[in-house]
Amino acid sequence: MTIEPLSPALQTISNEIFCAQDYEVLSKKFIQPATYAYISGGSGQDLTLLANVNSFKKRQIFPRILQDCAQGSTQTKLLGHSLRSPILLAPVAYQKLVHPQGELATVQAAEAMDIPLILSTLASQTLEDVAQKTEQIKWFQLYFQPTTQETLLLVKRAEQAGYSALVVTLDATIQVPSVQAKKAGFVMPQDMVAVNVQNSTDLKKRVLDADDSLIFQGIMAEAPQWQDLQWLQSQTELPIIVKGVMHPNDAVRLKEMGISGIVVSNHGGRGLDGAPASLDVLPLIRKAVGENYPLLFDGGIRSGQDIFKALALGANSVLIGRLQVYALAVSGALGVAHLLKLLQEELEVCMAMAGCASIEEINQQALYESHSSFTVE
Amino acid sequence: MTIEPLSPALQTISNEIFCAQDYEVLSKKFIQPATYAYISGGSGQDLTLLANVNSFKKRQIFPRILQDCAQGSTQTKLLGHSLRSPILLAPVAYQKLVHPQGELATVQAAEAMDIPLILSTLASQTLEDVAQKTEQIKWFQLYFQPTTQETLLLVKRAEQAGYSALVVTLDATIQVPSVQAKKAGFVMPQDMVAVNVQNSTDLKKRVLDADDSLIFQGIMAEAPQWQDLQWLQSQTELPIIVKGVMHPNDAVRLKEMGISGIVVSNHGGRGLDGAPASLDVLPLIRKAVGENYPLLFDGGIRSGQDIFKALALGANSVLIGRLQVYALAVSGALGVAHLLKLLQEELEVCMAMAGCASIEEINQQALYESHSSFTVE
Amino acid sequence: MTIEPLSPALQTISNEIFCAQDYEVLSKKFIQPATYAYISGGSGQDLTLLANVNSFKKRQIFPRILQDCAQGSTQTKLLGHSLRSPILLAPVAYQKLVHPQGELATVQAAEAMDIPLILSTLASQTLEDVAQKTEQIKWFQLYFQPTTQETLLLVKRAEQAGYSALVVTLDATIQVPSVQAKKAGFVMPQDMVAVNVQNSTDLKKRVLDADDSLIFQGIMAEAPQWQDLQWLQSQTELPIIVKGVMHPNDAVRLKEMGISGIVVSNHGGRGLDGAPASLDVLPLIRKAVGENYPLLFDGGIRSGQDIFKALALGANSVLIGRLQVYALAVSGALGVAHLLKLLQEELEVCMAMAGCASIEEINQQALYESHSSFTVE
Amino acid sequence: MTIEPLSPALQTISNEIFCAQDYEVLSKKFIQPATYAYISGGSGQDLTLLANVNSFKKRQIFPRILQDCAQGSTQTKLLGHSLRSPILLAPVAYQKLVHPQGELATVQAAEAMDIPLILSTLASQTLEDVAQKTEQIKWFQLYFQPTTQETLLLVKRAEQAGYSALVVTLDATIQVPSVQAKKAGFVMPQDMVAVNVQNSTDLKKRVLDADDSLIFQGIMAEAPQWQDLQWLQSQTELPIIVKGVMHPNDAVRLKEMGISGIVVSNHGGRGLDGAPASLDVLPLIRKAVGENYPLLFDGGIRSGQDIFKALALGANSVLIGRLQVYALAVSGALGVAHLLKLLQEELEVCMAMAGCASIEEINQQALYESHSSFTVE
Repeated sequence: MTIEPLSPALQTISNEIFCAQDYEVLSKKFIQPATYAYISGGSGQDLTLLANVNSFKKRQIFPRILQDCAQGSTQTKLLGHSLRSPILLAPVAYQKLVHPQGELATVQAAEAMDIPLILSTLASQTLEDVAQKTEQIKWFQLYFQPTTQETLLLVKRAEQAGYSALVVTLDATIQVPSVQAKKAGFVMPQDMVAVNVQNSTDLKKRVLDADDSLIFQGIMAEAPQWQDLQWLQSQTELPIIVKGVMHPNDAVRLKEMGISGIVVSNHGGRGLDGAPASLDVLPLIRKAVGENYPLLFDGGIRSGQDIFKALALGANSVLIGRLQVYALAVSGALGVAHLLKLLQEELEVCMAMAGCASIEEINQQALYESHSSFTVE
Repeated sequence: MTIEPLSPALQTISNEIFCAQDYEVLSKKFIQPATYAYISGGSGQDLTLLANVNSFKKRQIFPRILQDCAQGSTQTKLLGHSLRSPILLAPVAYQKLVHPQGELATVQAAEAMDIPLILSTLASQTLEDVAQKTEQIKWFQLYFQPTTQETLLLVKRAEQAGYSALVVTLDATIQVPSVQAKKAGFVMPQDMVAVNVQNSTDLKKRVLDADDSLIFQGIMAEAPQWQDLQWLQSQTELPIIVKGVMHPNDAVRLKEMGISGIVVSNHGGRGLDGAPASLDVLPLIRKAVGENYPLLFDGGIRSGQDIFKALALGANSVLIGRLQVYALAVSGALGVAHLLKLLQEELEVCMAMAGCASIEEINQQALYESHSSFTVE
Repeated sequence: MTIEPLSPALQTISNEIFCAQDYEVLSKKFIQPATYAYISGGSGQDLTLLANVNSFKKRQIFPRILQDCAQGSTQTKLLGHSLRSPILLAPVAYQKLVHPQGELATVQAAEAMDIPLILSTLASQTLEDVAQKTEQIKWFQLYFQPTTQETLLLVKRAEQAGYSALVVTLDATIQVPSVQAKKAGFVMPQDMVAVNVQNSTDLKKRVLDADDSLIFQGIMAEAPQWQDLQWLQSQTELPIIVKGVMHPNDAVRLKEMGISGIVVSNHGGRGLDGAPASLDVLPLIRKAVGENYPLLFDGGIRSGQDIFKALALGANSVLIGRLQVYALAVSGALGVAHLLKLLQEELEVCMAMAGCASIEEINQQALYESHSSFTVE
Repeated sequence: MTIEPLSPALQTISNEIFCAQDYEVLSKKFIQPATYAYISGGSGQDLTLLANVNSFKKRQIFPRILQDCAQGSTQTKLLGHSLRSPILLAPVAYQKLVHPQGELATVQAAEAMDIPLILSTLASQTLEDVAQKTEQIKWFQLYFQPTTQETLLLVKRAEQAGYSALVVTLDATIQVPSVQAKKAGFVMPQDMVAVNVQNSTDLKKRVLDADDSLIFQGIMAEAPQWQDLQWLQSQTELPIIVKGVMHPNDAVRLKEMGISGIVVSNHGGRGLDGAPASLDVLPLIRKAVGENYPLLFDGGIRSGQDIFKALALGANSVLIGRLQVYALAVSGALGVAHLLKLLQEELEVCMAMAGCASIEEINQQALYESHSSFTVE
């Protein structure tokens, strides 16, 4: 299997796109079916993937009237940076799967739209090439590598290339494509290479005892543990953000050990199939870490209203993953830029109608929850 | 695109109509598909549109036996008026989209059935022409205009024409057709003109800075704020009703500033997509404003039983929007009159079976809510 | 329209019937589509019809082990009668609509299976002819007639013919066929006559004022009220049972005025569309009237397990309505008898598996309710 | 009807199987439709069958990060045995229905995978032949026989053949195939014989009085009662486990009388149709019997994640029933072994992602329950 998209990506913005989510459907014309099954799927039976999306539908936003939003803005602060919008591009791996330019296209959209980009360890373009394309905030998503030397090498390259934070993903020790993707016959094309780590140690050569479990004594014996994260802290001056946190106790422990922020995420339903929606655990985690600790969020966002809901439930910013890939497949850099513009507009409309002139004004009071007791101010 | 209905409206009452809601289906034969998509849709993904309808299905009414309803009546009082029924015709814009006579047909039904009509600022007939057709109660729905002079001009024209109240709509600062309507290709026909405001200032000429948001520094900078409503109060003797209130705090503030009544409404799901059902917030708002403050309601009503449920949850009267348009499309004035007759009958049957001989007897005790604790009198 | 069944009723028991509910589907082959729409439908949009059936699905029964059921029996007492089973045949009108013998077939099944029958005022066979066919318990269902003389005449005829109780239906003052039945074109065939009341006063000649409501000043002016029920009590020695009670307060008042028992019922969803499921209000009513007051129940029963659930929630006995008609259509008297046998078996199997050897042992503890707190004995 | 599978079972593992549940679908190609309807169905309308599966979908598992699982294992203790995994093969009757080797194939999988097998009284191979094929833990599932001598004979044969526990099933006094199975025309083939009890007394010759109930005075008069279980305890040294317990009070009584453990089960939805999901009652039963009493579980398990959820809600081990049969039909012994491998892997992946290195660490805290109050450690 090699990469042959059904239609080459457009050079223009499609006139079939009326809202951000429309990229999800349209992209089917531009992505191989098996690849689309892989990207759009979660893991296992897609239970968590579905839970993510449904969790947004359960929440509703109070419209407000006559509020002064003339000075309204989506500007916000995150880890000392001033952002024009609480939207970041999630670290999606192997972007050349859907567009020949891959991450080099995505970064152009980030640059054009003034949106921070998080580059994946498993990018299909080198971290240095991507970094050169933007003056905007860029962070590097880090997977722990087979050896500490290899991990350290990646960190140093990221520092040198100008990435200003590390986003350490910790929920993907075991990645199992969805049953649907397997049935569709998806296998990673041979010419699709994670160029930043292509020379790393091949773990397949490891030998297990007869009684050993491939999962426990195999994969988990290599998996990072709390002391590894502590070691990483000692090796870099960059702020470290941990991605893939779903339990309040883990969040509190990370905060206490000096991690700069966390991404509440179930890897878009690609981790443990049967995990709760990340939106459902978000308020639990916000409550656990307190008001001022930086919380990012992803999982199930398909519109600007969804972004509003995540902010209302405690997120400071959100990461856009699948929609980014769909837009990339349809129109390359232009598509991603257009997607970001649509999300921005949808968020602004939602804020204006909810009477919120700033990101800081968005909180849980903005949401109507069924059967909740309600007290008039 | 011009207005070419699929079939000309009937001169008679269709024998395919057995209940008020049947006009919804039948009207598809009389309205252009794109126009039908526009009218029947809400905004965005139609989440709120659906929530409105489903909220009624969740509620159930206790039947009662042996009550004396021989003197029964739907008469009620509203802002000093005595109404034969708690039903009003909602201010639907551009009614010529579905019938060549537009609002001039609707007002004839209002006159014939003794039902108050609220005329939209965006009517396709002049407010003076419509006013001449009826001796019944008529109110004027007001959108704030680009300049105060223009707003004032509208108010004075409405006063002079005999409209006895202003219904100021405040939830439609930003109106986004549903994605479905956009996909169906709906655009407002060029010959469809809001004749009452066709000479108003063209806002499109406004110039924004590069960093400005079209939403915040564009649209919202022109949007009415609390002081504008106060100004309006100072300019007219007419009672002012505010339409589009969904939050109890907004309701309380309006009451305290002397607004005569409010319409609990999410613009029939055409405002913020993702807002709660207006029926769900109705009891919260009733509780917030107290027993005697005039509350009108719209959103999701498709039958006389739905009207009963809205009254039970705190509304004094209800506005009929979409059904009105569907009936207008099918049989013009006759259709709207027939629709009003059906709704009236359905409401009366429901009252009789629930043992309520008057509108005042309809309250929350008439509803069964699942799992609610229940105390015998 | 005259009565022409699609297939004549079978002379045998169909081998396509594996459980009581199967008669519902099979009967479609034996009943005219419009008539089937009328019978199977409720009123309006069938909301209450559906709620009735769904309410049973929400409840679950605890299986028990090792209980001694060798002396098990479904015998029970009701109004002084000893019944072999808590099952009665509901008073279904116009049974000749589905079988040429109508009520004369049904009564044979009642006689054969030792099951009480309740004959409808609107029967298509005379109450005297039906009475002659059975020595079993038989009750007469009474609708108040246009004049007290006519009502009294019916009562006296019923007394004379050997009916041992009056079941006064009070939830059908206004009967509106379902929209589905109307759309299917159902009209009562001209040769379908309520022979027991065919000479009663024709109410259609009544004249209303212009401002009068057909519902309130028309129908409801003729409807029975509390004093009419009191009058009836003074006119007969027969015990009076009231059918169609859904509100606990009505139940308490009936009990206090000396009514012998009530049937918790929403007329099988044929009354107020939008009423709660009768099963949902049953425990509220049981709680209101206390442990020992006779409560019958109907609405949504499609199996012996459903009968068990109704008994567990407070019913002393249940009425079988629609299933009776379906079985009558399929195989006449034989079909109804077979249906009763199936329901009896299904009830006995359910009791045995729930460890209940008698009807009296069936109570709310036998049901599992989600999220209910649970205390070990 | 004789046994003619649509396709002979494979000699290899199918490449269409990506997860344990895939055997459910694939097996349709290998099992006669009527037989498939019988096996896949529950009883009655399959309400409990569906409830079993849905109950798992309602529960969600918290992912955890950075836990040390390098020494992870699924080893656990049960009744003094050390098991490599909390998975057992359920006692499924008549396994030759789906594969010519029947239980002799299944036991080979048990032996190969080191998984305990529970042999059914209604096995289609003799208990002695099956026992010879494995050195692993094997238990004998016992149905009380028509006479105590016959029951005792079975017990003694099981003891002699090396079965180390008796699993007494008590929820199947009355077994009614699902309506679907009946409609599909399933009847047990004549050459399908329960070889271990083929000479037992034929109960059909029993004579009932005219007034007797086939259920109560027939079947239930023969059904085991509490004293029969006590008698059995006095006749054997083997530990006795009771299968088919759904009520906390029954569980407590069994524990108090010295029963060694119980299987929380509704017979896979094949017992009382309308019983709750066995997963729903599991936590109630765990609470009732206390922390240390051996609880096994079956009903609705279709994946390793489901096993995790059952363990979290209080089970010590689980039984695999339907999936076992499906895998047997597809690939005989090899299929069952492969199924067990898949379930083991799915369970290990789930444990690793939930941060549980041992079965003992899996508890209710590992589950997210909607709207539950949550307290940070």
